[in-house]
Amino acid sequence: MNDQTATRTGAVMAAIRARIAGRALGAGDRLPSIRRFAATMGVSPATVVEAYDRLAAEGLIRARRGSGFYVAATAQVPLALAQTGPLLERAVDPFWVSRQSLDADPSMLMPGCGWLPADWMPHEALRRAMRTLARADDHILSDYGATRGSPALRRLLLWRLAEDGIEASPEQIMLTASGTQAVDLICRFLLSPGDTVLVDDPCYFNFRALLRAHQVELASVPYTPSGPDVAAFEATVAERRPRLYITNCALHNPTGATLSPQTAHRLLNIAAANKLTIVEDDIFADFEPEPSPRLSALDGLERVIRIGSFSKTLSASVRCGYIAARRDWIDGLIDLQVATAFGGPSPVAAEMIAGMLAGGFYRKHMEELRRRLARARRDVAGRLQTLGIEPWLMPRGGFYLWCRLPGGFDAADLARAVLADKVVLAPGNVFSVSQSAPDFLRFNVAQSGDPHIMAALARAMKR
Amino acid sequence: MNDQTATRTGAVMAAIRARIAGRALGAGDRLPSIRRFAATMGVSPATVVEAYDRLAAEGLIRARRGSGFYVAATAQVPLALAQTGPLLERAVDPFWVSRQSLDADPSMLMPGCGWLPADWMPHEALRRAMRTLARADDHILSDYGATRGSPALRRLLLWRLAEDGIEASPEQIMLTASGTQAVDLICRFLLSPGDTVLVDDPCYFNFRALLRAHQVELASVPYTPSGPDVAAFEATVAERRPRLYITNCALHNPTGATLSPQTAHRLLNIAAANKLTIVEDDIFADFEPEPSPRLSALDGLERVIRIGSFSKTLSASVRCGYIAARRDWIDGLIDLQVATAFGGPSPVAAEMIAGMLAGGFYRKHMEELRRRLARARRDVAGRLQTLGIEPWLMPRGGFYLWCRLPGGFDAADLARAVLADKVVLAPGNVFSVSQSAPDFLRFNVAQSGDPHIMAALARAMKR
Repeated sequence: MNDQTATRTGAVMAAIRARIAGRALGAGDRLPSIRRFAATMGVSPATVVEAYDRLAAEGLIRARRGSGFYVAATAQVPLALAQTGPLLERAVDPFWVSRQSLDADPSMLMPGCGWLPADWMPHEALRRAMRTLARADDHILSDYGATRGSPALRRLLLWRLAEDGIEASPEQIMLTASGTQAVDLICRFLLSPGDTVLVDDPCYFNFRALLRAHQVELASVPYTPSGPDVAAFEATVAERRPRLYITNCALHNPTGATLSPQTAHRLLNIAAANKLTIVEDDIFADFEPEPSPRLSALDGLERVIRIGSFSKTLSASVRCGYIAARRDWIDGLIDLQVATAFGGPSPVAAEMIAGMLAGGFYRKHMEELRRRLARARRDVAGRLQTLGIEPWLMPRGGFYLWCRLPGGFDAADLARAVLADKVVLAPGNVFSVSQSAPDFLRFNVAQSGDPHIMAALARAMKR
Repeated sequence: MNDQTATRTGAVMAAIRARIAGRALGAGDRLPSIRRFAATMGVSPATVVEAYDRLAAEGLIRARRGSGFYVAATAQVPLALAQTGPLLERAVDPFWVSRQSLDADPSMLMPGCGWLPADWMPHEALRRAMRTLARADDHILSDYGATRGSPALRRLLLWRLAEDGIEASPEQIMLTASGTQAVDLICRFLLSPGDTVLVDDPCYFNFRALLRAHQVELASVPYTPSGPDVAAFEATVAERRPRLYITNCALHNPTGATLSPQTAHRLLNIAAANKLTIVEDDIFADFEPEPSPRLSALDGLERVIRIGSFSKTLSASVRCGYIAARRDWIDGLIDLQVATAFGGPSPVAAEMIAGMLAGGFYRKHMEELRRRLARARRDVAGRLQTLGIEPWLMPRGGFYLWCRLPGGFDAADLARAVLADKVVLAPGNVFSVSQSAPDFLRFNVAQSGDPHIMAALARAMKR
């Protein structure tokens, strides 16, 4: 076998291994026919035969006389969600931003990351809450806590929902370990592998990573400055029959756009006509200056599930999320949370969050953050514009700026280039199911103040 | 249609609905043939036809001309893990103990529950750890933390593994939100729906609930006083080809039994010959007076994954678990944890646990707990024996006594009866895949001191 043939055989083997690792092919499934896969891979049938024979020799697949090749029942292949490798060599995939920024060393600058700098967070309040908790009841410090989570925090969340016009009962709310875990539980509860889920394009990159873990198909709808494109939404729902639509309320991630009342109303009608369930993540809602329409409020928690957390506003270390939904769903979700996490979130975390939400501190803290962010937004937008990087819109609040690069620049290339300069960017396509945002970057205005960032960008764009 | 026919039709409809809700039948799956399901349900084929027609009218299933009935693609049926209902009416299933005890009002007595009473937990140390943390670095109080979790706690865990003879590298260990979440992540990583998993019989009831959420088949092996029955283990592995075997190390839940060196060695050889992966949960390990064989230590983390947490020894509120495994698996598990929980466990929780493990406090605390538990074990065993309730063995440590009821008593009946007396028992069959422990109860000796418990048991046994 010459080198080129060996490479082609290796490519076919790798393609099959990837399908098994990504669970597109499971134990007992039939492999693509030799003729068809040869056409798919652009190689000769003999190359596919060679590759299948080698995989069979490894025990990963086996031949059944006269009926082709099948994934072996004993092929134990762990779920591979991402291409792994040393940090600097990772693929620019939905895991790129999260792992680059979660595991960054302290000297990294992170305009692409999804949270506020530590010195913007309310440390005095966190320290006070912690000292208060050091005097709490024994049970709070050492017990598992109720399956629905801290009654004090759930009561506060009910009041907040009531402010949005949602009259929910205490049985309609449960606490979770985080907002992400809330979405994950809902997906496990409502979805089966192979189902289709609708997301915005662009959308929060970790929705893509999460849904990959659920082995579902993704459909996407273009996001406009007033919410998803309604005609595209209707057509995609009719064609792809998604089970779930996952979106943000208030300030959309990554665009910072806001849902208009007309769009909200139409989306709900389309959802109702098609028995579509909607998950609305309110994670950035408190960064809004004035409340925008909430799908959950219009719908009254019939087919909309509201989730959220305080990781962006109070602490991502003292984590706690919540789910508000139909009561019968909450009952099922609680069983699932008991089975998979033995109970609700840490009572200590829930009590600390409840302590900081009660009283006037939280309102003042958010007012201050909104003021600081408005200044940073104007400032960063101006500096980006001098580089020819244009915000797609100026958001009403929050910390994101979704920006288009000047002609010809590829955001993933730029992100790889500035990583050597210790700058972590968030390239557009990690947010895009259709991969239609190669020339976009998401900037976190609170993390973009260091002049070194703009200098590194300017250098990379001159190369 | 007369009443009896209506009831039979309803029963057939309920049986199909339950299979869809429990995901035994998914969207697009063919329903059992009319003839076969009539035989299964002991009704006439006409009754099954009637039931299928009604389910089709509801839109849950649909007929395909000439080829039978199929679950509708639009049938969105949430995953139903348990029969839900008011607490007192719940089925005695794997969720029975967890939900009865997690949501118990403070006046309940809980000899069936799986944790120590609040006043046995180290509250002074917890309060001290919390006050220390109130002075910690800003980043610890508000950031997400590294994907692998607190370096300080991982270092301490590596030392503990080294004491067991396991030389692991820092890349082989990751923190999780809890021990349960550790098992859950591993199952998501290694299993696909329809795979088979082997557990002990009896085993920790929540392994059953968790595996139900993964929609896998359960195989079980009888547990003997020296570990699983080796011959049965070998035969079951050969016959059922499980992907995973999940067990405890040190003190087995619920029996309190200890693995012998010979059994450990043989299990590992059978696992190696059959490419079986083993998950070993060390949750009760620190309650052992002298260390017993660890599968993970004999194996060196090749095919054994070690998990654990400090929920039973330090706090179930400040929760944090860990996984030690092959490095390539840890990399994949971290991606999965990022996708489904956006990061590792709470840095605040991890630092509190690290603070309590460092220094001499933890060793003294565990010595004291072991002494107290030894006294309680003797005392409770003696009082149960006066009722004719006999421990299956006297465990070397821990807080469980696995006890056989005198002839004729059904543990589930007894558990339901004493619930009205505000006593939560753990009936044997919630731990048993084969349902072969109807006459067993698991007692937590630290929760069984109140004389009211023995009085309620005696009354119920006299009825």
